[in-house]
Amino acid sequence: MGKITRAKAVIITIGDEILIGQTLDTNAAWLSSQLHQRGIEVLRMLTVSDEEEEMERAIRESLKVAGLVVCTGGLGPTRDDKTKEVLCKVSDEKLVFSQEVFDWISERKRQQGKEPNELHRRQSYMPTGFDYFRNNRGTAPGMLGEIDDSIIVSLPGVPYEMKELMTNQIIPVLLEKLPVEIAAVRTLLTAGVAESELAQELSDLEDNLPEGLSLAWLPGHTRVRIRLTSRGDDRQTVEQNLDECTVRVREILGDIVYGEGDDSLEEVVFELLKNKQLSLAVAESCTGGFIAHLITLVPGVSACFKGGVVAYSNEIKREILDVNEQTLKEHGAVSAETVREMLTGVCEKFGTDTGIAVSGIAGPDGGTPEKPVGTVWVAVGGVEKQHVEKLRLNLNRKLNIEKSGLLALNMLRLFLSRD
Amino acid sequence: MGKITRAKAVIITIGDEILIGQTLDTNAAWLSSQLHQRGIEVLRMLTVSDEEEEMERAIRESLKVAGLVVCTGGLGPTRDDKTKEVLCKVSDEKLVFSQEVFDWISERKRQQGKEPNELHRRQSYMPTGFDYFRNNRGTAPGMLGEIDDSIIVSLPGVPYEMKELMTNQIIPVLLEKLPVEIAAVRTLLTAGVAESELAQELSDLEDNLPEGLSLAWLPGHTRVRIRLTSRGDDRQTVEQNLDECTVRVREILGDIVYGEGDDSLEEVVFELLKNKQLSLAVAESCTGGFIAHLITLVPGVSACFKGGVVAYSNEIKREILDVNEQTLKEHGAVSAETVREMLTGVCEKFGTDTGIAVSGIAGPDGGTPEKPVGTVWVAVGGVEKQHVEKLRLNLNRKLNIEKSGLLALNMLRLFLSRD
Repeated sequence: MGKITRAKAVIITIGDEILIGQTLDTNAAWLSSQLHQRGIEVLRMLTVSDEEEEMERAIRESLKVAGLVVCTGGLGPTRDDKTKEVLCKVSDEKLVFSQEVFDWISERKRQQGKEPNELHRRQSYMPTGFDYFRNNRGTAPGMLGEIDDSIIVSLPGVPYEMKELMTNQIIPVLLEKLPVEIAAVRTLLTAGVAESELAQELSDLEDNLPEGLSLAWLPGHTRVRIRLTSRGDDRQTVEQNLDECTVRVREILGDIVYGEGDDSLEEVVFELLKNKQLSLAVAESCTGGFIAHLITLVPGVSACFKGGVVAYSNEIKREILDVNEQTLKEHGAVSAETVREMLTGVCEKFGTDTGIAVSGIAGPDGGTPEKPVGTVWVAVGGVEKQHVEKLRLNLNRKLNIEKSGLLALNMLRLFLSRD
Repeated sequence: MGKITRAKAVIITIGDEILIGQTLDTNAAWLSSQLHQRGIEVLRMLTVSDEEEEMERAIRESLKVAGLVVCTGGLGPTRDDKTKEVLCKVSDEKLVFSQEVFDWISERKRQQGKEPNELHRRQSYMPTGFDYFRNNRGTAPGMLGEIDDSIIVSLPGVPYEMKELMTNQIIPVLLEKLPVEIAAVRTLLTAGVAESELAQELSDLEDNLPEGLSLAWLPGHTRVRIRLTSRGDDRQTVEQNLDECTVRVREILGDIVYGEGDDSLEEVVFELLKNKQLSLAVAESCTGGFIAHLITLVPGVSACFKGGVVAYSNEIKREILDVNEQTLKEHGAVSAETVREMLTGVCEKFGTDTGIAVSGIAGPDGGTPEKPVGTVWVAVGGVEKQHVEKLRLNLNRKLNIEKSGLLALNMLRLFLSRD
């Protein structure tokens, strides 16, 4: 068998539970990132039902456009598992009992103190003309065959079994058979600035990207991620181009970029606090504990984080956070003055160097013409130096809460890093 | 325009970030379950890149097999958003500037205190021959058109925008145009009991379901959802069968069932508190604000919820919640005694009738042989009557936090409803 000339792939997920939206397909995303990292471009991902006709159509279509087709699912021992029958149909092979596969399965079952049964015997019929790969975490073997000038791989649907087979057994074979392009990817994370504004800042750079580099936008409510991809024939050039482009984007955007890859705002804030040996407490009204929750998702954060107060009523703002009654009366709970006093109060009560205080109207009710739903005041800093900002959000209650919380964390990040 | 005769659908997700496995596609699963619940069968789900050629091929293929094609993504203002160009190609229409759409976008931007820019003008070009639907949560409108004898729908990829457009604007139009089978679906929600135990309780009922009724299990870490589907030719019979089955499941499971459909535990707890005119405060250590966050997601909850304390250090447990120094020394922060005192402390400080207190080890570090990671103590009730329980969890940090929080809320629910 020679090299396959087209290194483009299609991933096919087989299973009714995914098709009706009951189960989220995490296999396709995992497979895709594994292939992408190795320079194999995924053309499309496809989910079809357990019906033979649908599976057959999907596989035939995919073989026409891709040099690699990876299927997951439909390899179980029950009658609704039809993948092997379909593989036989599209490859003109037939199902034959494999003593070797039956021995694998029997050995596995006996290790668990069980005897193989009729269903395992049925599971040992394999399509002729395919290579089999032993499943070390379950009973369904992996399979790899060639049809015309494409490779087809079939893997079990259980993620834990599929991943082991793919990583240790299938990928090494694929890398030998497929012509792979060299690619490197980096994702820069920004917070607090809209995609359209960022895009304007980067429009010159985007218009003049060197050959092999591409830039993609991944917008969210609070964060916009910028993905840079570099491709080419030479690993060193590919990585150098990516590094240079990253530096240029970071130069243009400055501290709008808070991290890369999977970094979270709360982790970045924790790193800043740790480096500066500062402690933190939070005083939350409308965010209702969301900021504290984000912070406490970070392992080991107790080194800096003391805790906080959810002051959902004015009474609690007064009594636990020492906000002045006069301030609440004159300026209202949603005001610069109140969040300043909440911040001072929580830092003093919890004995911390820094804090975050938030008060706002998350909705759907509680808005007024002067202070509509989505008005949120944030104060960050300490007792002495404070930065206060007003946000105007227009999402639903849940997202207003989440966005306020993330923007408040981002404000603390900027306060700490610019300080 | 008449009725479409084939009520089968294809869902197409457009976006490189999904295709390279960077982002998990939750839109397709959500759309699929929405269509499934309304009797529209989804034939396949398909993910393709932002490349025009790939999108065009996917749409053309799908139109051949389905009466409905729903696309998400590729409608943003940036250069890599090509969906509208492709829709024009496959429908032989052209892109024309729509003053109406530009006015929607401009109005939306001005509400945010911003002016529309060049990118928004670009986003206002729409394919002729399509109906547009105003996006109330973003700038990209939804679109619906007919090509040959199929309907094609194009929605933005941001889930929050997509869901609003689909639920309130697109689905009503689809139900008019597509031939749908009569189906009714109800989902019963349970918390705190494992799927295998629930399945044993319901095994008799499951074995003897009447014609047209089916039961599906949707397990999660804390909640198990039980979905009942009733199908038939006659609306009245379909609904009556569903009602009868619901009553039987509720009889068997009792107060393990906390609600239906989209009910949340926090809403149910709020209803109980409101009906009994009780106030609530929370004292959280390992859950770090997550419980307060869940509770404050409920609109209007300030009628009962006063707030809480995140006591992430022993110092704060002592000083803000009045936990005895001796208790912490003798029994440790993760103990029945400490959560009892935290509960009493927060109820007294916040002047509330009821409270929740949680202290535990979320991991990954901090465990000991006697108190391994995943040990969590919960107290619910008031100053006088308290219910205390120990949980032993074995998930990762994030999921240990979430599960502790939900189980603690469920304990308060049972405490209040059995009281």
